[in-house]
Amino acid sequence: MDMEILDNVIFLGTVTLLSALQNVFFAYTVQNESLQKRPTHSAFDRVNVSSRNCAEVYPTFLALLWTAGLFCSQAPAAFAGLLYLVVRHKYFVGYLGENSQSLPGFFFGKRLMAFLFFMATAGIINYATNYFFGINFLYYIQTATKASAALLLIP
Amino acid sequence: MDMEILDNVIFLGTVTLLSALQNVFFAYTVQNESLQKRPTHSAFDRVNVSSRNCAEVYPTFLALLWTAGLFCSQAPAAFAGLLYLVVRHKYFVGYLGENSQSLPGFFFGKRLMAFLFFMATAGIINYATNYFFGINFLYYIQTATKASAALLLIP
Amino acid sequence: MDMEILDNVIFLGTVTLLSALQNVFFAYTVQNESLQKRPTHSAFDRVNVSSRNCAEVYPTFLALLWTAGLFCSQAPAAFAGLLYLVVRHKYFVGYLGENSQSLPGFFFGKRLMAFLFFMATAGIINYATNYFFGINFLYYIQTATKASAALLLIP
Repeated sequence: MDMEILDNVIFLGTVTLLSALQNVFFAYTVQNESLQKRPTHSAFDRVNVSSRNCAEVYPTFLALLWTAGLFCSQAPAAFAGLLYLVVRHKYFVGYLGENSQSLPGFFFGKRLMAFLFFMATAGIINYATNYFFGINFLYYIQTATKASAALLLIP
Repeated sequence: MDMEILDNVIFLGTVTLLSALQNVFFAYTVQNESLQKRPTHSAFDRVNVSSRNCAEVYPTFLALLWTAGLFCSQAPAAFAGLLYLVVRHKYFVGYLGENSQSLPGFFFGKRLMAFLFFMATAGIINYATNYFFGINFLYYIQTATKASAALLLIP
Repeated sequence: MDMEILDNVIFLGTVTLLSALQNVFFAYTVQNESLQKRPTHSAFDRVNVSSRNCAEVYPTFLALLWTAGLFCSQAPAAFAGLLYLVVRHKYFVGYLGENSQSLPGFFFGKRLMAFLFFMATAGIINYATNYFFGINFLYYIQTATKASAALLLIP
């Protein structure tokens, strides 16, 4: 993205990133509580719960995807987003299965969202160092991100 | 939108569009399950359920609105979005009504969201053909979209 | 933000703002209903409910933050967004506390979201007057917004 456009949204992106981080903290709190009681669900409840879990994390995912893509590098962010969609589909379908199988947790795709989060953080830190000290290492970040995006395919 | 700005977000928009499509698939699955059991709700439950239904679809609507507006044409997308707000209001108020009347389904505004989805898809396909083959038919898409937006007013 | 970029998104932003307003109307309806029955919750229910309340308002907050930042002024919008994150954290932690203490309501951070909403509305109205009458008072809006942002710190 051009620098003069980023100038207009850098603070908004930072707050968005912080709010996504806070959402993850909330999700972990819910997960810790819900691990202690896991009732047996009917089929309808399972569909409902899995859909609600997916829907709750969806805005956080969108915010991370766009901040990572705008502030750092587009192609690795879109690649991680695609992988996240695959993981989400597996989560949703797996949740609908038999009750005896090990249910996946409340929060899924942690690695992909962490990748997007570190991309966005690196982009914002690079913006700050570029503004204050004139040091711009965005090219190296982008190269490292593109190289490490393939590592996300490891299950 | 300018081409050089779209260059920076085309992949992000594509992934956003795919995720919106996946959300619709999830919503249909929940709807199919919930058709088989429709309990009688109290007034509080009805408010709660209708608000939650609206809130769950809201990020998907926002994602479709912005991808359709950025990648295809702004005015028809905003027009469809306005109509969607009207439909959502009718849905919410209708849900609060008597229990005996036919409740609207889980998922509403299907036609408007499909219109936004096809607009965004046409814009992204046009971007790909413009990039690979140099064929740009965005002008015809925008004209057709503007003409067909009036058809959305038919109830 | 540059004017020629805003030209492409002004209608989308307006619809987004209207939808955020509608979301607030929905939230108030739920709050009015739920004030009449407030059952005693277990710890798990409290975590679940507070997290769901936060998650439901999250897309509305993001939409208001970005429309306020893009159409009016960036720094006060980001400042109000940061304060909103603090308020949200206090809300979430306070909800987890003892059942006897006064539970905060369903909808929190009203003042901050109203501030963001008025910023976005002023920016869109200024865009309209600039387009139709050639009157641009964005500079005065931005100055007034920056001065009044400090008032948000008053508890």
